[in-house]
Amino acid sequence: MTNPNPDAKLKIIPLGGLHEIGKNTCVFEINDEIILLDAGLAFPTDGMHGVNIVLPDVTYLRDNRHKIKGMIVTHGHEDHIGGIAYHLKQFDIPVIYGPRLAMALLEGKLEEAGVSDRTELRPVRPRDMVRLGKSFVVEYIRNTHSIADSCSVAIHTPLGVVIHTGDFKFDHTPVDGEHFDVQKLAEYGEKGVLCLISDSTNSEVPGHTPSERSVFPNLDRVFSQADGRLLVTTFSSSVHRVNMILELAKKHHRMVFVVGRSMLNVIAHARELGYIKCEEDRFQPLRNLSQYSDRDVMILMTGSQGEPMAALTRIANGSHREIKIREGDTVVFSANPIPGNTISVVNNIDKLMMKGAKVVYGKHQGIHVSGHGAQEDQKLMLALTRPKFFLPVHGEHRMLVKHSQTAQSMGVPAENMVIINNGDVVELTQNSIGIGGKVPSGIELVDSSRQGVVDRETLRDRQQLAEDGIITVAAIVSQRGKLVTPPTVDIRGISQTLDLERFQNKVSDLIGRVLRERTNKKGIERDGIQPAIESELRRLIRKELPKRYPVTVLLLNWVETAENNAPVPALTAS
Amino acid sequence: MTNPNPDAKLKIIPLGGLHEIGKNTCVFEINDEIILLDAGLAFPTDGMHGVNIVLPDVTYLRDNRHKIKGMIVTHGHEDHIGGIAYHLKQFDIPVIYGPRLAMALLEGKLEEAGVSDRTELRPVRPRDMVRLGKSFVVEYIRNTHSIADSCSVAIHTPLGVVIHTGDFKFDHTPVDGEHFDVQKLAEYGEKGVLCLISDSTNSEVPGHTPSERSVFPNLDRVFSQADGRLLVTTFSSSVHRVNMILELAKKHHRMVFVVGRSMLNVIAHARELGYIKCEEDRFQPLRNLSQYSDRDVMILMTGSQGEPMAALTRIANGSHREIKIREGDTVVFSANPIPGNTISVVNNIDKLMMKGAKVVYGKHQGIHVSGHGAQEDQKLMLALTRPKFFLPVHGEHRMLVKHSQTAQSMGVPAENMVIINNGDVVELTQNSIGIGGKVPSGIELVDSSRQGVVDRETLRDRQQLAEDGIITVAAIVSQRGKLVTPPTVDIRGISQTLDLERFQNKVSDLIGRVLRERTNKKGIERDGIQPAIESELRRLIRKELPKRYPVTVLLLNWVETAENNAPVPALTAS
Repeated sequence: MTNPNPDAKLKIIPLGGLHEIGKNTCVFEINDEIILLDAGLAFPTDGMHGVNIVLPDVTYLRDNRHKIKGMIVTHGHEDHIGGIAYHLKQFDIPVIYGPRLAMALLEGKLEEAGVSDRTELRPVRPRDMVRLGKSFVVEYIRNTHSIADSCSVAIHTPLGVVIHTGDFKFDHTPVDGEHFDVQKLAEYGEKGVLCLISDSTNSEVPGHTPSERSVFPNLDRVFSQADGRLLVTTFSSSVHRVNMILELAKKHHRMVFVVGRSMLNVIAHARELGYIKCEEDRFQPLRNLSQYSDRDVMILMTGSQGEPMAALTRIANGSHREIKIREGDTVVFSANPIPGNTISVVNNIDKLMMKGAKVVYGKHQGIHVSGHGAQEDQKLMLALTRPKFFLPVHGEHRMLVKHSQTAQSMGVPAENMVIINNGDVVELTQNSIGIGGKVPSGIELVDSSRQGVVDRETLRDRQQLAEDGIITVAAIVSQRGKLVTPPTVDIRGISQTLDLERFQNKVSDLIGRVLRERTNKKGIERDGIQPAIESELRRLIRKELPKRYPVTVLLLNWVETAENNAPVPALTAS
Repeated sequence: MTNPNPDAKLKIIPLGGLHEIGKNTCVFEINDEIILLDAGLAFPTDGMHGVNIVLPDVTYLRDNRHKIKGMIVTHGHEDHIGGIAYHLKQFDIPVIYGPRLAMALLEGKLEEAGVSDRTELRPVRPRDMVRLGKSFVVEYIRNTHSIADSCSVAIHTPLGVVIHTGDFKFDHTPVDGEHFDVQKLAEYGEKGVLCLISDSTNSEVPGHTPSERSVFPNLDRVFSQADGRLLVTTFSSSVHRVNMILELAKKHHRMVFVVGRSMLNVIAHARELGYIKCEEDRFQPLRNLSQYSDRDVMILMTGSQGEPMAALTRIANGSHREIKIREGDTVVFSANPIPGNTISVVNNIDKLMMKGAKVVYGKHQGIHVSGHGAQEDQKLMLALTRPKFFLPVHGEHRMLVKHSQTAQSMGVPAENMVIINNGDVVELTQNSIGIGGKVPSGIELVDSSRQGVVDRETLRDRQQLAEDGIITVAAIVSQRGKLVTPPTVDIRGISQTLDLERFQNKVSDLIGRVLRERTNKKGIERDGIQPAIESELRRLIRKELPKRYPVTVLLLNWVETAENNAPVPALTAS
């Protein structure tokens, strides 16, 4: 394809996905040409109050937009395609290639965001080869993962071939019959792979990740034991799992009611492309639920991670309008909680049980397997591709470290791999790999209203408000430096029962004193007043209450004239 | 002991520890006499901003304090003794019995809180029998748990014997050689146990919980592989684990540096009582750290759960003044994260690795076992005691349900057991068990300053402030209903970049309009103004910003007189 050039240098610049699980976004740059591999979103962590979505800082792409030749997408998970619509509001991407299911899901997102016209989506099939710019030719390689139609990619560059695994496991009995193209991987390994960039999610887990199919007999057993209605939850994007659940629904003669926007969306697209096979007459809309006896009902829904607004959470709370849990119901969790979600999930399990449902959950049941390969699967990937250089990605620090140790145990020398961070510029040549610099990197927090970006200062404010509460003091001060009325005090979020009247008197005295100190014949020294009063107030609050509380001081000046021509008080934001 | 009375009725009233893990507090009441079994604290959950400690609502005990004959403590964990000092501020407890280590730890807490004079602590040994009031005789029975000197109790009442397991596992090779007194349990089982009240923590886990001792060879292996300094963390109250760690330090010729207040405290008391055996010269104060070469150092510290202020967390952050991580250090996590703490723990692991430490952690390492029995251990307890009635406690709903199913599988009829909540009054007779009523129950949240109680409204305020931010508007309004100056607007915690000047003008217009509508010849209709302005402001904010934000309106009235005799504006707290 492209003639190998021994002096060429490829830059690999992750903007998201390193030292974290989420918002995978990777830039490949050579000869003033850029391609982007995936652009996902991440979910907020503790302390990110009021934040819905976390995106990577893409300043680098904005600043280099003229170099962007296109994008390659590996599969349709949110942490790989969830950011694209937001980025397209900032810069164009001429063309986006990706597997058909991923492109179908992406198309919906772009339409919803009104940015469809900013790019061209081109669905590809495994073993398709696409050219981007002059420097990049990419071959799509079928792999296996929890979502259907997932690929690894072989990126041909002037230096040689870089293989990016995407997200993968080795599932030798895939539910949809589309096997991992190990022949193609082996072929690349034989010809020579310069660098392997590989999924580190399950680096800490010894052994192999079992096949999706291993879940089938256990789910079958659980379904057999259900006397009443079945309510099943799993990840909406786990197309293979959903396929098996639908197959079992048919086997057990149960009509299928799908609940939850993302579940409906993924099933629709997957059926269209043939990844989910289920006759139309097996599905019923929720409004027909009462027409069926309990033994003939299976409800498939979102909420396996305890997400606050998802169907199962609302059912557990009793706030779902159409579905109320009753004795005889069996709820099946075909998913394990992701760290951070455990408490939300077990709270739902408890509530469902308290409402009388039998709940089937937990690792011992054998009704869930991971979509990511464990240590032996990672070794197989290394064995097939036999890369010269190695970059672990898609993982937190300890996962990247463990993955590196695994690669070293396979014979890749320590100096041929790097543990990288978002923003690092990895420079790859035919003979070396190393970090050559940094680009701007970081996060953008998208507000719960999905319209605003939450800046760090706002987030800090919110964290402080959550922790401490707030005291607001407003006072009218005449131009001659006198407190015109006693100050008004508003207290919010503070647990001490404060003697309000006594506190107000102290605040009066305090303000009066500061005013006297800062008033001369000409009038009040306006500039120093506000900060002086605030600082005295904080001191008073520290005395009256054991903790430091954020204090807002609103000082309204009043000019004593007959016509009430008062100067405009400054807008304060302290 | 007490003559069995077939008509007698025992009330068992849990105030904490049911449908949760934490603040175990159980009331036993008969014939106007009350004894209390344990009184612990719980830790705050998500959303409890600024809260340090969660206690049970003990209104019932306050209201019935004259009936309290005394208290029995089963062991020295915080969720069993951590609440006692707080309760003693509200009512006296004539006498508290408990194992020696628990009493030693409790004594320190009572002294610190200044309530030592409100009770008498009486340490007991296993097989001691103590009388409380006329109705209760309690025999202490040695059991095995993660803390040393732990007991189950057999409570003799006029109805018969009630056995409360405390927290337990069956460890047949206990580190301190003090075996579970299975003979005494079997003896009670032979003579007849009316009711068993049993620890449900690990109800969902099949099989047996391994012995503490099983950890020893694995820790030994990890210690052998450490070339530089060893830094080990575990639960400070896990006396047996600490004992083994100290034994291994000696075996590997390492001096012991203990870091962390609770770790120092527990070790001091445990050594005094002989539960930890370690010569004085094996310990060194932290200030001597630099005198020892790396291979001779073992630092034992708090922080295994990622607690924000604990030693290991500060070391991971780099903020610990005396201990800085360097290459060659090995950090050992001899503990698993409790659900809810996982993210804090893995964040620490990542930071320690980034600083160059080798970190040993995870279930596969075999360096931690639980202190609570699994399903087969729970069955053994039931087999030894052969109770007529059964009450699962110390667990969340699904754990209580599972434990009940386990008891039923052992032959206890379903009608002989109840799943109860905090506040339920369980009425036990010789022939029946059931819920007879409810007493006040709930939680008290203790503020981070540990001085104030955080009420629900405050907590709601804080949650809203965290989620939304706050807009404060202050305005001076003359008695004639005119806005005297443009209003002042303060914005905090809101991410939309608002055009402040434009917003301020709109607020002016709004206030002016409301004032005109509510002003007649007599003046402004003062009562309706504030709520009317607030409601209009909220409507404006909903229009200008997509989310609803809490709005504080501070309206300061101004009376136009020459002498500035203004009425006092109401203290607003909307």
